[in-house]
Amino acid sequence: MESIGSTRLFLFLYCLSCLSALTIVVLLGVWLVSFRGGFAWQSDIAHEFNWHPLLMTLGLIVLYGNGMVVYRLMRYQRKKKLKLIHASMMILAFIFAVIGLKAVFDSHNLKDPPVPNLYSLHSWVGITAVILFSMQWIFGFTSFLFPGVTQPLRVAYLPIHVYFGVAIFILATAASLMGLLEKAIFSLKDNYSTSSEGILMNCIGMMIVIFGFLTTMLVTKPQWRRQVVPEDELLLGDRLSEEDNEKLLTDSATERPAVTTD
Amino acid sequence: MESIGSTRLFLFLYCLSCLSALTIVVLLGVWLVSFRGGFAWQSDIAHEFNWHPLLMTLGLIVLYGNGMVVYRLMRYQRKKKLKLIHASMMILAFIFAVIGLKAVFDSHNLKDPPVPNLYSLHSWVGITAVILFSMQWIFGFTSFLFPGVTQPLRVAYLPIHVYFGVAIFILATAASLMGLLEKAIFSLKDNYSTSSEGILMNCIGMMIVIFGFLTTMLVTKPQWRRQVVPEDELLLGDRLSEEDNEKLLTDSATERPAVTTD
Repeated sequence: MESIGSTRLFLFLYCLSCLSALTIVVLLGVWLVSFRGGFAWQSDIAHEFNWHPLLMTLGLIVLYGNGMVVYRLMRYQRKKKLKLIHASMMILAFIFAVIGLKAVFDSHNLKDPPVPNLYSLHSWVGITAVILFSMQWIFGFTSFLFPGVTQPLRVAYLPIHVYFGVAIFILATAASLMGLLEKAIFSLKDNYSTSSEGILMNCIGMMIVIFGFLTTMLVTKPQWRRQVVPEDELLLGDRLSEEDNEKLLTDSATERPAVTTD
Repeated sequence: MESIGSTRLFLFLYCLSCLSALTIVVLLGVWLVSFRGGFAWQSDIAHEFNWHPLLMTLGLIVLYGNGMVVYRLMRYQRKKKLKLIHASMMILAFIFAVIGLKAVFDSHNLKDPPVPNLYSLHSWVGITAVILFSMQWIFGFTSFLFPGVTQPLRVAYLPIHVYFGVAIFILATAASLMGLLEKAIFSLKDNYSTSSEGILMNCIGMMIVIFGFLTTMLVTKPQWRRQVVPEDELLLGDRLSEEDNEKLLTDSATERPAVTTD
C-alpha cells in the first residue's frame, strides 16, 4: 500500500505543478497585456489573436493537466463524483480550445489580405491534438458516463483511455511550445535574440515543459494509482470479483521494477 | 506471463516504429539534398548547417528511441550484453548530437556577421535535452556498468533512470519539431504556406510524432517489460531473494488497471 512518504512526495510535486501552472498564467498575462496590447474580438483582429495563446494554454495545458490529476489527488472521493469533475474540466478545456481556435482563424481570415490557415507544423500538430482530444472526450463520456458500456468493454478501454490521455496531453504541450516559438519569430523577427519579450516567451515555454513533466509524472507513477473505494462498488452497483479485489490490493506492492536491476 | 498475442502486438508496433524511422531518414535525406543543397563542412557553412537536423534526428530521435527499446526487443539476451548494446547506442547518439551541435554553432559563428547562439525556444529546449541526456548517460554508465554501485542503490535508481530516459526522449522529440518549424519559417518565409518543401518538412515532423508515440508505447507498457533471465543472476553474481523472484513472476499478471473501472 501507499506509504505516507510517497503521499507527501505526491502532494509536494502537485504543489510544484500548481506553482508552475500559476507562473505560466501570470507570465502569459504579462506578455499578452504588456507586450502584445491586451485582448479584443473581431473589431480588432490583431488583439483578437491574443486570446489564442491564452485560451489554448489555459485549456489544453493547465485544465487538461489538472483534469487528469484529479483521480489521484482526490483519491478518497467516490468514483462517480471524480468522473463528473474529470469530464467537466475536460469539456471546459475543450470550450477554451474552441474559442482559442476561433480567435486564430479570425485573425487569419479577417485580415486584409487573408493569411492562410493550417500550413505550419505548429498548426498541424496543434489541430491533431485538438481532434484527438475531442475524440478522447467523446469516447470517454460514452464509455464511462452516458450511456456507458458494459464492464468488460470498460475494462478493455480504460488503459487505452489513460494512455492516449497522457499522449495527447504531451502532444498539446509540444504544440504550445511550437506556437510560442512561431509567434516569437513572426513578431520579434531579428529582435528575438536581443529583446526581453523573447526571453519572457522562452521562459513561458520552459515553465510549460516543467508543468508537463510534473503532471505526466503525477499521473503515470504506478505507486500513486487511485485504489478502489468500497463505496464505489456499493453505490454504483458495479461489482468486482473477489480475485480482482485481491489483485487490486496487491497492485502497488508488486510494482517492483527494482528487481530487474543487476 | 506474456501472451503470444501481446508479443505479436509488440513486434507489429516495433515494425511500425522502424518503418516510421526509415521514413523520417529518407524524407530528411530528400529534403536536405534536393531542397537544401546537400552537405559540407566549415568551408561552406550554409551547407554545414544541414548536418544539424540530420545528425540530431539520427542521434537523439532514431538511435535514442531504438536504444531504449533494445531491452524489450532482445528480451532473452543476457542482461550484461543488453546493457553494453544500450550504452553503446546511447554514446553513439551522443556523438551524433555533438557533431550536430558543432554544425549549427559553426553555421552561426562563422557567418559574417555572426548569428547569435541559443536565443530561440528551440535552442533552449534542445540544449536542455542534450545536457540532460549527457547526465543520464553518465549516471547510467557509472551506476550499472562501471564502476557500478551497490544493488540497493541500483534498485533505487533504476526506475528514475527509466522515467527520465523516456522524459528526455520526449523532450528531444519536442525540440526536433520546434527545430523543423523554426527552419521552415526562416528558410521559406512567406512561401511556407505554398511550397512543397513546407509540406515535406511538416510531414517529417508528423512522422517524428508517430515514431515518438510508438517508441514511448513500446518502452512504457508494463506488459512488455523484460523479465529476468535466470542466466543473468548466475553469470553476474547478483542475487535476487526468492521473494523478489516470485514478485517478478507475478508482475505482468498483476498489472490490472482494468479493475479500477466502473
